[in-house]
Parts: sequence; C-alpha cells; structure tokens
Amino acid sequence: MKNTFGYQVTVSLFGESHGASVGALIDGLAPGLTVDEDFIRHQLTLRRPMNQLSTPRQEADPFVIESGVYHGKTTGTPLLIRIANGDVKSGDYSPFAATPRPGHADYTALGKYNGFADPRGGGHFSGRLTAALVAAAAIVIPALRQKGITIATHIARIADVSDRAFDDLVRDTAKLNDAVFAVLDDDAAANMQAAILTAAEDGDSVGGVLETAVTGIPVGVGEPWFDTLESVLAHALFSIPAVKGVEFGDGFAMSGMRGSQANDCFTKDGDAVVTATNHNGGINGGISNGMPLIMRCAVKPTPTIHKTQHTLNLQTGEMTDLVAGGRHDPCIVHRARVVADSMVALTLCDMLSIKYGTDWLAK
Amino acid sequence: MKNTFGYQVTVSLFGESHGASVGALIDGLAPGLTVDEDFIRHQLTLRRPMNQLSTPRQEADPFVIESGVYHGKTTGTPLLIRIANGDVKSGDYSPFAATPRPGHADYTALGKYNGFADPRGGGHFSGRLTAALVAAAAIVIPALRQKGITIATHIARIADVSDRAFDDLVRDTAKLNDAVFAVLDDDAAANMQAAILTAAEDGDSVGGVLETAVTGIPVGVGEPWFDTLESVLAHALFSIPAVKGVEFGDGFAMSGMRGSQANDCFTKDGDAVVTATNHNGGINGGISNGMPLIMRCAVKPTPTIHKTQHTLNLQTGEMTDLVAGGRHDPCIVHRARVVADSMVALTLCDMLSIKYGTDWLAK
Amino acid sequence: MKNTFGYQVTVSLFGESHGASVGALIDGLAPGLTVDEDFIRHQLTLRRPMNQLSTPRQEADPFVIESGVYHGKTTGTPLLIRIANGDVKSGDYSPFAATPRPGHADYTALGKYNGFADPRGGGHFSGRLTAALVAAAAIVIPALRQKGITIATHIARIADVSDRAFDDLVRDTAKLNDAVFAVLDDDAAANMQAAILTAAEDGDSVGGVLETAVTGIPVGVGEPWFDTLESVLAHALFSIPAVKGVEFGDGFAMSGMRGSQANDCFTKDGDAVVTATNHNGGINGGISNGMPLIMRCAVKPTPTIHKTQHTLNLQTGEMTDLVAGGRHDPCIVHRARVVADSMVALTLCDMLSIKYGTDWLAK
Amino acid sequence: MKNTFGYQVTVSLFGESHGASVGALIDGLAPGLTVDEDFIRHQLTLRRPMNQLSTPRQEADPFVIESGVYHGKTTGTPLLIRIANGDVKSGDYSPFAATPRPGHADYTALGKYNGFADPRGGGHFSGRLTAALVAAAAIVIPALRQKGITIATHIARIADVSDRAFDDLVRDTAKLNDAVFAVLDDDAAANMQAAILTAAEDGDSVGGVLETAVTGIPVGVGEPWFDTLESVLAHALFSIPAVKGVEFGDGFAMSGMRGSQANDCFTKDGDAVVTATNHNGGINGGISNGMPLIMRCAVKPTPTIHKTQHTLNLQTGEMTDLVAGGRHDPCIVHRARVVADSMVALTLCDMLSIKYGTDWLAK
Repeated sequence: MKNTFGYQVTVSLFGESHGASVGALIDGLAPGLTVDEDFIRHQLTLRRPMNQLSTPRQEADPFVIESGVYHGKTTGTPLLIRIANGDVKSGDYSPFAATPRPGHADYTALGKYNGFADPRGGGHFSGRLTAALVAAAAIVIPALRQKGITIATHIARIADVSDRAFDDLVRDTAKLNDAVFAVLDDDAAANMQAAILTAAEDGDSVGGVLETAVTGIPVGVGEPWFDTLESVLAHALFSIPAVKGVEFGDGFAMSGMRGSQANDCFTKDGDAVVTATNHNGGINGGISNGMPLIMRCAVKPTPTIHKTQHTLNLQTGEMTDLVAGGRHDPCIVHRARVVADSMVALTLCDMLSIKYGTDWLAK
Repeated sequence: MKNTFGYQVTVSLFGESHGASVGALIDGLAPGLTVDEDFIRHQLTLRRPMNQLSTPRQEADPFVIESGVYHGKTTGTPLLIRIANGDVKSGDYSPFAATPRPGHADYTALGKYNGFADPRGGGHFSGRLTAALVAAAAIVIPALRQKGITIATHIARIADVSDRAFDDLVRDTAKLNDAVFAVLDDDAAANMQAAILTAAEDGDSVGGVLETAVTGIPVGVGEPWFDTLESVLAHALFSIPAVKGVEFGDGFAMSGMRGSQANDCFTKDGDAVVTATNHNGGINGGISNGMPLIMRCAVKPTPTIHKTQHTLNLQTGEMTDLVAGGRHDPCIVHRARVVADSMVALTLCDMLSIKYGTDWLAK
Repeated sequence: MKNTFGYQVTVSLFGESHGASVGALIDGLAPGLTVDEDFIRHQLTLRRPMNQLSTPRQEADPFVIESGVYHGKTTGTPLLIRIANGDVKSGDYSPFAATPRPGHADYTALGKYNGFADPRGGGHFSGRLTAALVAAAAIVIPALRQKGITIATHIARIADVSDRAFDDLVRDTAKLNDAVFAVLDDDAAANMQAAILTAAEDGDSVGGVLETAVTGIPVGVGEPWFDTLESVLAHALFSIPAVKGVEFGDGFAMSGMRGSQANDCFTKDGDAVVTATNHNGGINGGISNGMPLIMRCAVKPTPTIHKTQHTLNLQTGEMTDLVAGGRHDPCIVHRARVVADSMVALTLCDMLSIKYGTDWLAK
Repeated sequence: MKNTFGYQVTVSLFGESHGASVGALIDGLAPGLTVDEDFIRHQLTLRRPMNQLSTPRQEADPFVIESGVYHGKTTGTPLLIRIANGDVKSGDYSPFAATPRPGHADYTALGKYNGFADPRGGGHFSGRLTAALVAAAAIVIPALRQKGITIATHIARIADVSDRAFDDLVRDTAKLNDAVFAVLDDDAAANMQAAILTAAEDGDSVGGVLETAVTGIPVGVGEPWFDTLESVLAHALFSIPAVKGVEFGDGFAMSGMRGSQANDCFTKDGDAVVTATNHNGGINGGISNGMPLIMRCAVKPTPTIHKTQHTLNLQTGEMTDLVAGGRHDPCIVHRARVVADSMVALTLCDMLSIKYGTDWLAK
C-alpha cells in the first residue's frame, strides 16, 4: 500500500519540502471525535526546531483542515490536513543532484524515481512531512487519552549522554508530553544539549535513542504471525526518517540473558493480573499482555553535515569534496520525539479500531 | 491483513502444533518457477532440532504440495504446502491453561481468543509453524539466486559468545547456507554450543543475535514513508517468534556516532557506484542503495524452561511453582537462522515483484 | 490481493480440479463460533450435481478441517478446509490445450500463466473450487442467522422461464435454503428443468438469473466511495464463474424509470423507519438503509457444450471443429444458487466484522 | 480499504460539497508521466453541468496540484489534486436533516455517521467528488493512450431513448471523447435531451445506461477468483453514485441465450487471435482475452426531484410532503459519462501496473 499506513484508520502522506504544501489524509476515523486545533498546534510546536539546536528554518506550520470535520467534530469521512510551505530557499540544494549527500536519500531517490523526483529540500523525503504525521496523530491522541491510553516518549540518549529509564509502571511521564526537549532527568537534558552544540561547532551531527512507553492497552492486541504488535509498531517506527533500530522491552539486551532472567512471572496487583517485571515490554507471542508497552528507536546522526565529505560526483565520475550549505539540524532526536509518539498513536488507534470496530474511539 | 504477509507475493500461515497439519498458502507466484522438492527438504532440515541442543521431538516434516504446481513448475495459481503433524504428546501442556508460562503466549492467547485457542503445544503460536515459512521460502529462494540475489544469515551471537562479522562485501557466506549451525568462525560455534549445553544443564535457556546479509538488490527498492525497506523487513523479522529487536547497518551503534562517521561516502568500484563503507546497511531514506543489505535480529532466550518459576495460577489466584515438563529447546537461535533467511526471501520477493511485475521472478 | 477476498474476515481459495485437493483458508473468524460439520455437508450437497440436470461426475466432497477448530468451535486462528479430489478423468480435457473452448478460460489461462497452468478439468478455474467457497460460508452462515441475518437466493429465471419475485418483505424464503432446485413457484421449477433437458438433448446449455435477498442488515453498512455496499457485493458476485451481470433493487429497470417512481419514500412500520417500496434494494448512497437487500446475478449458459463449434486450433493456426467430450453441466444456475448465498454471506460477515470488531460474530 | 481504490496505483477521495475543497490523492504513479493541465480542465468540463439539462450551479473546478508533480512530470510520489469549492448555497439543504430525501443518502449517512456528517449539499456523498475522480484519471488517460489503450463511453440510453450500439471492433469512438453529450447517433442525442427536458418540466428526473468500450488491453489481465476483471471493474463502476446495475458483454441478455449462441469462437485476424463475436465483452474466466472490453452501467434517475414526495419526518415521526428546493439535475447520465471513463481508466491503470510493474506506464 505504498504511502498509506493502517487498515481501519489509515494515514496517507503527501507533499514535498519546497512544493506547495505537505499534509496527511486520514481515513476511517470514528465520527464524533472532538478536533482540538490548539492541541494540533501544540504538537506541531514540539516538532519545530529549537534555536541553536536545530535548523534556523522557521516553520510556522499553518494548517488547514480541508475536509472531514464539521462543527469541530470528525464526520467519519476522510480528513485532509494540509500545511502550506513557506520560507523556502531552494537554491541551496541544487548541487546534490550531481553529488548525492552521503547517508541521505539523494542517491536512492534518483534510482527509484528515475530522476523525476523533486530534489529541493529533500523533496518528499524531507523531515518536513513528519509535521503532517504529527498533525494527524494530534486528532486521535486526545481520544486515546479519554480511553485511558497514554503514550510518552523521552530522549533516552543523545551521543553518549543517557537519560534515566522509565520506572517500571511508567508513572513519571506527565512532564514529557509538553516538553520541547523531553527527558526524565533534567541534568541529562543539559548534557545532551551541550553534546549537540559541540557537534554543531565541528560542523557535525549526533544521533540518539528514543524510548516510548504506552499504558492502558488491554490484553489481546496483535496477531500471532506477521501482524504481531512488535511487527506493526516497528513498521511504523522504521518509517520515521533516520531510525535504524527498534527494540521492545529489553530488546537486544535479552539476547544475552537466560530464560530465567528474561521471563516475566505473572502475579497480582489487587485484582489485576500483572507481571512482576517487564523485560518483554508488554508483549508476549506478539500480543499485548496488559503491561506497559516499552520500545526504543535508534536514531542515526543527521546525514547532512557542514563538514567536508569526500564523495562521488555522478556527472563527472570523479571524487569531489562536498560541503553542504543550506540549513540543517545537528541533531533531530529531540524533534523526532513527538513523531515517535505520533506514529505509535496512529498505529494503536488502527489496531484497536480493528479489534473493537469503526466507532470504538468515539464511544 | 492479519495472517497474511505481502501484497503481490503473499504468504498465509495455518495450523496448530498438535492439530492435523501446519502449512502455508502462497499466492502471486510467477508461473514457471521450478519447484525443487529436495531443496525444500534441505531447508526444512536446517530448521529441525539438533540432538542435545534442541528439543528431542522428531519432526520429519513430510510435506505435500496440494495445489499450484504442475509438472514440477509453479502454475501461477495459489500454492498450498501442507505439513502433517506427528509425534505429538499433548498431555504435557495441560497445566499451562491454569498457569500460563512466563514469557510465553499462553496468557495473551487466552486474552485474545477468549479461551477458545488450541493450547496443545502452543497451538497456532508454536514455532512449528516456522516450518511452513521455511517451506514457502524454499520455493522462491532458488529463483532469487538465479536473479543474482543471495541471502545469508549467520549466528552473530549466542549468550556471550560472538561470531566474527561479515566482511564488507559479504563474500564469505557460501558455507552458511548448508550449515546446521551457521557461523563464520568455527571456534565460535564450539563455544556457542558449550554455552547452550551449560544453560540446558541448569534447566535454563539462552538467546542470541542473527545477522543477515543480502546481495544483489538493485537501487530503488522501498518507499520513502511507511513501506520503507527497513519497515517491511522489520515487519517480517519481528513476526519470527522470540525476536525482540531489529536493526539495520550499524543500527543502535549509530545512535552514538557522529554524522561524519555514520555517513557512507559514494565512490566507484569499476563502473559501479558503491559506498566506501556500509554503516547504513544498504539502505538510505528507506530505499536500497545497491550495497549489501545488513540486518540483525535479537532473539530472546526460549521462554519455556525446566527451572522452577514462581508465577500465578489463574484459577486459584495463588502464586505457584511452575516446572515445565515437555520438550523444548534450550536455544532456538541456530534453528531460527533459516527462518530469518526465509522471511527476508519472502519479503524481497514480494517487494521486487511489486516493482517489476508479477512475472518478474520467472523471467 | 489476488486470490483473497475481504479485509477482516478473509477467504483465500486454492486447488485445481484434478489436483490433490481444493479448499479455502479463512482468516479473522471470531473465536468461539460453533462449527457444524453436518451443515457444511448439507450446503455442499446443494452445490452438487442433480442427476440429468448436471454433470454425472460424483463429487462426494469429503472435507477435512486442518486447523482453526478445537472442540467443535473456531479458535480465532486461520481455518483451513480441504476437500480431496477424486473421480477425475483427466484424459478428457487434453484437446483444449491446442483448441481452447470458446467462452471458457482455456485461452485466457494460457495468456495469463504463460502455458504453465494445470489444464486438467479447468484447473484452478474449475467450478469445483466453489465447493470450497460453500464450505467456508457454511461456517459463518449459522452465526449470521443467530444475529438475525438471513440470506436466501432463488432461481429467478432459467432460459425463458421465470420464477415469481420475492414479496416485498421477503417473508417467503424458508423453503429455499434446503431446496436443491430453489424456486418460489413449484410450477416454474418443472418448466425450468424441462428447458434444461431440452437444451441438453441438443448438446447445448442454458443460463439464467439468480436473485438474492438479505434481511436483518442494520442501517449504515457500506462506504460512500469505492467500498459501497453495491461495489463490494458485486465484486464478490462477479467472482462466481459465469456471472456476467449484477444489479441491485430494480437495477437496469431503474434506468427507464422517473425519479418519482424509483424513489422509496420513508414511512413507519411500528417504531421502525422503513421505506414504502424497495426499488433501491435496501441501499442508498452505497450504504444499507435497513430494508432487505435485493440483488440479481445474470449467469451465462455453460460454455462447455457437446455441440460442434467451429473455432481455432492454436497449434495449426487452422479453423477446426471442436466437439467437447467429457462431463459438463447443461445448466449451472441451480448449482450456483448456494454459491451466491455463500459469497453474500462471506461479504456481509466481513463488512459487519469491520464495523463491529473482530469478535462481533461470536457475541 | 474504505476510501481508497486500487493496490498499486491507488486513488483516495476527500471533501464535502460545501466544505473547503474536494480532491483526490493518487499514489503509485510511475515517475515521468507528463501532466497535461489543459487535458485535466478539458475532462472536468465534460463533467460540468449543461445549461437546462443540469443544475445551474456553476462549478468552475479550479484545481491545484499540491504535490507529486515537478517541472510538469509526475515525480512518482503521491500526487494531491485539490479543487476548491465555491458558489455554494448551504441554506437550501437544511430540511433534509429532519426529512431525509427518498432515494438519497441522507438517511443512510445519518445511520452510518451517527449524525456527525456534514449534510450541506450532500456532504461527502455529493456528486461533486466525482470531479476529483475525473481529475485524477485525467493524469493517467494520456499515458494509457500512448500505450494503445483507448477508453470510450457513450450514453446508450436515457429514459426510453436508445443510442445505437458500438460496432464490433469499436472503431467509431473518436467523437465521443470530446463530446459534452456523448452519443454515437446524433438523432438519439436530440431525443434524449427532449426526454430530459420533459421530465424536468414535470419536476421529475430520468435515468439511463452508459456503455463503455476499452481497446488495447492485452490477454491475461484479471484473476480467476475474487479479483476477476469483471469484479474489479464492477467494484469501480458501482462506486459511481446512482449506478444500480453493471453488466459485461451481453450481460443479462446472456441469461436467455444458449451456450452455442453465447460462446465466442476463436479465429484469426491476420496473425492475431481474435473471437468472431464478442458476447463475453472481452473477458473469459475473469481474464481479458484481447478483444474490446464492453460494459454497461445502469444509472438510476436522480433522486432529488422538485415534485412533492410524501415521506417521513424523523423528528416528528409524522408523514410529510417534501418539496426539494435547491439546485439539482433532472438527469446525470450525460455528466456521469466521463466519470465512468475515469473509473475504468484508473482501474485498468492499477491492474496493468500490478502486472507489469510500477514504472510500466511511463515506459
């Protein structure tokens, strides 16, 4: 299905960085959901650049809802949200047609689209399209919260600076949702920002890890094969630009554990069946077990850097020194945080709507 | 689509561990592919248990192709491959209905299927269904090889014992495909097997990491959003039981790199455009760049262990000591190796058939 | 999705007429549905040939449920039903490779499958695969009935003999479901059968029209665009071999009406909102309005006939006289009746499960 | 997939009649197709009302291509085409919330969307959305023509006035594509228009039949089950508002034929294998046979009429006389003509792109 995600509640993206607009078409929404435009704006703000830590491009992200909303409620018909582009400087990107940026999509776009893709600002590959994802998710997140489902992501690591982990029951996420630089430990934030600035001074970039926790998911979401909860969430998370790894629960660390260490024994918390530990991140056999879902994404360092890179000029066939001008982020991890939240929200909204029916989210 | 994977070349699984049979329905195969039953048997052998390292259940895996093959060639119509079950001892699994095994799907199956799932031997969740996946993939792997596409997986780690990595151009994979215990470094194999046996003696289990390399994929496979090559491959790999993490290229390690370290500069190898390094695992912007695809799966330790576990009896509501009898593997990493190969083969077969048309694989 | 129908409750077919077996894989069934094997057998009997009116091939249709059922109830995992083939005389069909039968799929199969399709008995195109559809539907029909949904089809016409129409509220369908030759007016049955025998004596065949009525569908099923209720039902009905036309309500006759004649005014029946007439067949704007769904399929005369046909020999490039030996039906309309019921049942089961959630049918 | 049609080349619709805009999102287009904005305008003109024969609402249909086109060529990324709404008089439609129009979607929309749908001008159900379909198709039609595929629809009947049929080889379609009132026989046009005006004077409406012919489709398009060429085309055609019947070749008339009459014997035309007749409309066994595809849609009379209708007021529970003010068409058959062309073009573009690969249309 190419550029569409989901079965019941689907999201399709469109747009190029320096084209007329970017946006998302959301289909299958329950009728009667309240659309909170302030909340959409709030979420978009979290994705927007932070002064020195990010690209200086000012993205006001003025969105228009073209369809699917009437008197402030979803109608149940397709909802199109469109964000006009502005403040574009297309001239900056022209050399990349001949000399594709290492680590970036310039070269693969050329191969896939036979030279017809819009190269300006990364075109359809631009991180700018994540604004549309964030806006789309901002329509369902309030409804998910009313259903008792909370989603929170923190910056678990940037460069070599780590935040502390979630506590076991993920009770400490309240402050994350409104944070522009979302960490659990404020000292970590300062050190992470220093690491970003150091890299920026070197004309370089850094990566990091995002960790997401979800509470309130009932037992029984996911399929035993192919559409396991891990499969579908990973599918969503790997479509965020720069994500190169996804793990659930203790993830890669589980490969070094013994079964007796990795298993989460069942016990009771009042009347509820819970697990005493949560090494499996709330998922057994591909299906939610009622515990918090825990997942992490590895975000690679931004590929566009100011530092000189020795690479190939496709037109001359000669090696050349590439120095990228233009505006770009020395780190996108903090901006990708709300994108991870958004992808997880859209994924769970879809899976739960499949399980409980099309009107579930509005009930 | 629940229990079906793929768009153009689709695979659906069916069966329960102690039911009549397990199998796969493969649709969208090009007509005219040679079906090599010996190769199917060979691949199934690689998944089968190894004496002490695995469960003693003898799975002869006698398969029948019910449809879709005529005079030894695929017809282009749906191909059903069915593997009858035998040598089942259903009595062993009955206690798990009351006391779900920690880390296993017993509890989530109960929640998802409202108590109607077949619990015997793990039912539909059983690793036995991977035999059907392996058989399905064994139909397309020879055709992919004829197209110059090779897929090879080695055991990168078991417990704390690591194999060496693939060399950069993945030239050393020939010996892997026929190996029951597939490593690049034979010494590693001995140490890994010792680690498994040590765990088994403790009534415990171990996990590990599988690393897969694919060569021969042209530039331009994958989509910029949602169906990125990483997304679709991860979707496939996470549906292998016990996989809790997936990464591409340098994966999680990239989160600690700088952009100047993680970027793969372009250069030439003869007339071919290549990258000087392959930190990105052959994928930029979600799309193949012509370099070898590199990915790793974290496999958790087998959850069923002989060691006593203190867990909940759902019927009594009391904590109880669970000692699992029955047959199970102290490690499934080496058996999962051919399953990873198979999922990657099926995924790429689908994506390439979308790109090049339904008859591509037979051309 | 090629050989799969449905989104939530999906059916995939496999098999060739003279291969090992034919069957269906049904995924997405709610767990806990009672599987009544006697009812499956009953439904298969209705599809089976009737002495002189049909092909003398005896199809005992002995089916095996390979998976997805435990202790007589659906488990919620994929259900495979397999019907072994027997009583096949493959020799009869060999000339059709060179001289494709007019009106049949021989020639198009050749073009689509590049000569690799199994030609024996029509291969995968054989009407025999409808046995698998009937068996699949027989699993959901009892549950739909418990939900108050009834589906009934009668033979509205064969050759130039018509049955009477359903009455407005479709109260007279009880006798149809168990009838081998299902008509509302018994005199029509005798005349239809006479028409079939007359054609058979001429070595020729006849077609007809099937009319299906569905009661108990709530208001609000279907989508405004693309997946209108008419679109999805027609998609299903046109996949029955030999169907060349589908219409809803007054269908083609509406094209000659005025709006004032074709509109169904709303009124009350007790507390219920109903329409005074049902020209629209229970569907407005692509969505069910609570009235009985009414639809008709045109079934063309069986293409395989004993009469001599002057057609092309592909190998010689010369015109030739083709006289089809082998066994075939002078009319399939009466046998297709239960197939139409089955396709409608599977379609509505899917659409309602999307609307109300995966477990709906078992609630 | 609700509001999306197709697998490889997909179209999604959005918008409400009196909302901000309507439009279509087209994904999976080959890169490098020339986008001819004049041709899009031309096609939109054909859908626009004709003076007295249609609603006086002036729909200028000013479209904007927001994405997916660069330097006049498709980029291969999602193409969004948006048509702003103007000249709307929302006040006219308010009574229909209480008193749903007979034959219209007012009542079913209420049931499906729980009262949240935008009722103005029919909201998302409005025929205005077909402008987006026409625009979407206008992007692929020129490329299909370059591949030798022609699609032509004529008004086969309005009220009781019939046009002549296509000749056997469909050689006489050239004049149809640019005609606002597309018939083969000019006398028929005059009589049809007279019939429309007579109905309009009575405050009533008329329906008709559209007949579409497609040439240039190779042998082998379509699937034997579920996605037969008839199934997929009918799915598309039934999603055009007011279509209540679809037939292929001789369609319903075949139900009264004998096999010897309905079969199309093969013969040669030069080196090409053709059929001597085309009763099957170019499709055997669900798959194209290389002959022209022939299909017909029954279009019911426009449900909104000026004539008084005695129907239910849902709020009072009393019967009432409904007199629809507002603007509406006494006949939409001539306007639906280009919509039928468009749906057929989009369907075939998708099916052929599946068969031949994503870049096929641009090759």
